[in-house]
Amino acid sequence: VALSSLAERVLAGDPKAIARAISLVEDEAPDAGALLAELHPRTGRAWLVGLTGAPGVGKSTLADRLTAEIRSQGLTVGILAIDPTSPFTGVAILGDRITLGAHAGDAGVFVRSMATRGQLGGLARATGDAALVLDAAGRDVVIIETVGVGQGEVDIVRTADVSIVVLVPGTGDDVQAIKAGIMEIADIFVVNKADRDGADRTVQSVAAALALQTHDPRGWRPPIVQTVATTGGGVPELWAALTRFRESPAAGREERRRGRYAAALRDRLVQRLLRHVEESLPAGEIERSIERVAAREIDPLAAADELVKQVIRS
Amino acid sequence: VALSSLAERVLAGDPKAIARAISLVEDEAPDAGALLAELHPRTGRAWLVGLTGAPGVGKSTLADRLTAEIRSQGLTVGILAIDPTSPFTGVAILGDRITLGAHAGDAGVFVRSMATRGQLGGLARATGDAALVLDAAGRDVVIIETVGVGQGEVDIVRTADVSIVVLVPGTGDDVQAIKAGIMEIADIFVVNKADRDGADRTVQSVAAALALQTHDPRGWRPPIVQTVATTGGGVPELWAALTRFRESPAAGREERRRGRYAAALRDRLVQRLLRHVEESLPAGEIERSIERVAAREIDPLAAADELVKQVIRS
Repeated sequence: VALSSLAERVLAGDPKAIARAISLVEDEAPDAGALLAELHPRTGRAWLVGLTGAPGVGKSTLADRLTAEIRSQGLTVGILAIDPTSPFTGVAILGDRITLGAHAGDAGVFVRSMATRGQLGGLARATGDAALVLDAAGRDVVIIETVGVGQGEVDIVRTADVSIVVLVPGTGDDVQAIKAGIMEIADIFVVNKADRDGADRTVQSVAAALALQTHDPRGWRPPIVQTVATTGGGVPELWAALTRFRESPAAGREERRRGRYAAALRDRLVQRLLRHVEESLPAGEIERSIERVAAREIDPLAAADELVKQVIRS
Repeated sequence: VALSSLAERVLAGDPKAIARAISLVEDEAPDAGALLAELHPRTGRAWLVGLTGAPGVGKSTLADRLTAEIRSQGLTVGILAIDPTSPFTGVAILGDRITLGAHAGDAGVFVRSMATRGQLGGLARATGDAALVLDAAGRDVVIIETVGVGQGEVDIVRTADVSIVVLVPGTGDDVQAIKAGIMEIADIFVVNKADRDGADRTVQSVAAALALQTHDPRGWRPPIVQTVATTGGGVPELWAALTRFRESPAAGREERRRGRYAAALRDRLVQRLLRHVEESLPAGEIERSIERVAAREIDPLAAADELVKQVIRS
């Protein structure tokens, strides 16, 4: 049927089919589960590269240049740019942010902005699923770019196969980023806009912070790569660092992939369990519980216990 | 017993008991559920003020000054400063960030940095619970300060009774923040460091963005308040704007509170259901499922369905 043919077209690498498939998983469409089930056996080959940092550090330009470098190696690329979304409208605000004009005519580059419908965890789930679609579609490298330094974004990036944290000199962003808890998720640091005053100081402060960290027992010390994304300077060095990491024992690729699958399973489990609860309980039962909690007749945990007991007994 | 006495001491406003209680809910200690059940009937009075913006915009200083203003009105304050946490060590990195020296000897001000153990959604849950503790302890105003503009942080702030988004002039942060999807969660905008060049331009760009938004049918247009947090300039105006919002029909306080309780109930429901699954299944069953998913023998959704069926049948 139509769905199998969509899966087949995704597996054949058809960009329109990829776009349609990502829309389905992003919207949590009814068909999304069946589609992912069809694609799942054909995943596991793509290399997931997480790219994060504060707004304005030049992540998009860097992703663009890195893509050109990866393409020059003969590899195909998928880019997922995570847009924080309006929680009210569900519309991605940065939808037009990534233009990647340089790759516009290149079938080897697929770019997609990811939005979410506001549910906590929804963005991580949708991004993971979109990465699976690109993986199944045969993309060699999938770059996942996140704006911001929030917990959700950290969770997305730390499940990638390699995580790049981008800083810029001079604005105090270096210290902010280090403070903001993303220090320890970085496999590679990039100091972008390295032609600016203060780049050396930023490199030094990162190096100093790294020196305080416990060493990876597998011997990987996150390198600090200086780039000027606007000109492409340092980007070959960044790709070299990525390749070194990939070949290092520290990459722990199977472990990270297993973590991704474990998170996906847990996510689906929660989804199914909540659906079971909603379908098993009399209509309006959950709303009545919320009202009683809001009226402070019962606390949330006790209310949850009551609901679970009803479902388990039935 | 000890727990009841802890609850009693929290209800009496004892700062040491508050600190202990927040630690319990933050650690998801076994006693946390019973404690929250004891406190829950006595909550619902505090006013929750969310304060968010990019790193470096001066949120902490602003929270400090706003606290002084609120204290001068004879009201008590609790401050929860959300720290993005190292996902590996679980240690809050900004733990010593807020000093609030000015309020050190003031029993009417309670300050706490919140960390999380890295589980997606854990920070939102722990922050909500900590706010309940401060509410039960009789704090009139609870300020929840989040670093970053990620989805998790947005979720935290939008469940507050009022949300303040802080911007600064000149760095392009204004546009970034607007783009980053936090525009629509703001009930009040603050342009901090308003003595800097470009403050007027930032105010204008926010006003222009606001003009494009759909109007709140209840007639609230988010005001743009200019502050200089380092000197306290504009802070009385900020408090006046907060008070105006509180008295506006747009505040929808019961609706927001209901949203908080609904989220808390859902959170507990998931927690209980997952525990039920883990306890009902044979040892190692979930791990075996993960292995099969990782080996691509089965997709996550089908694996989740299998697990749910086993639990529901039993």
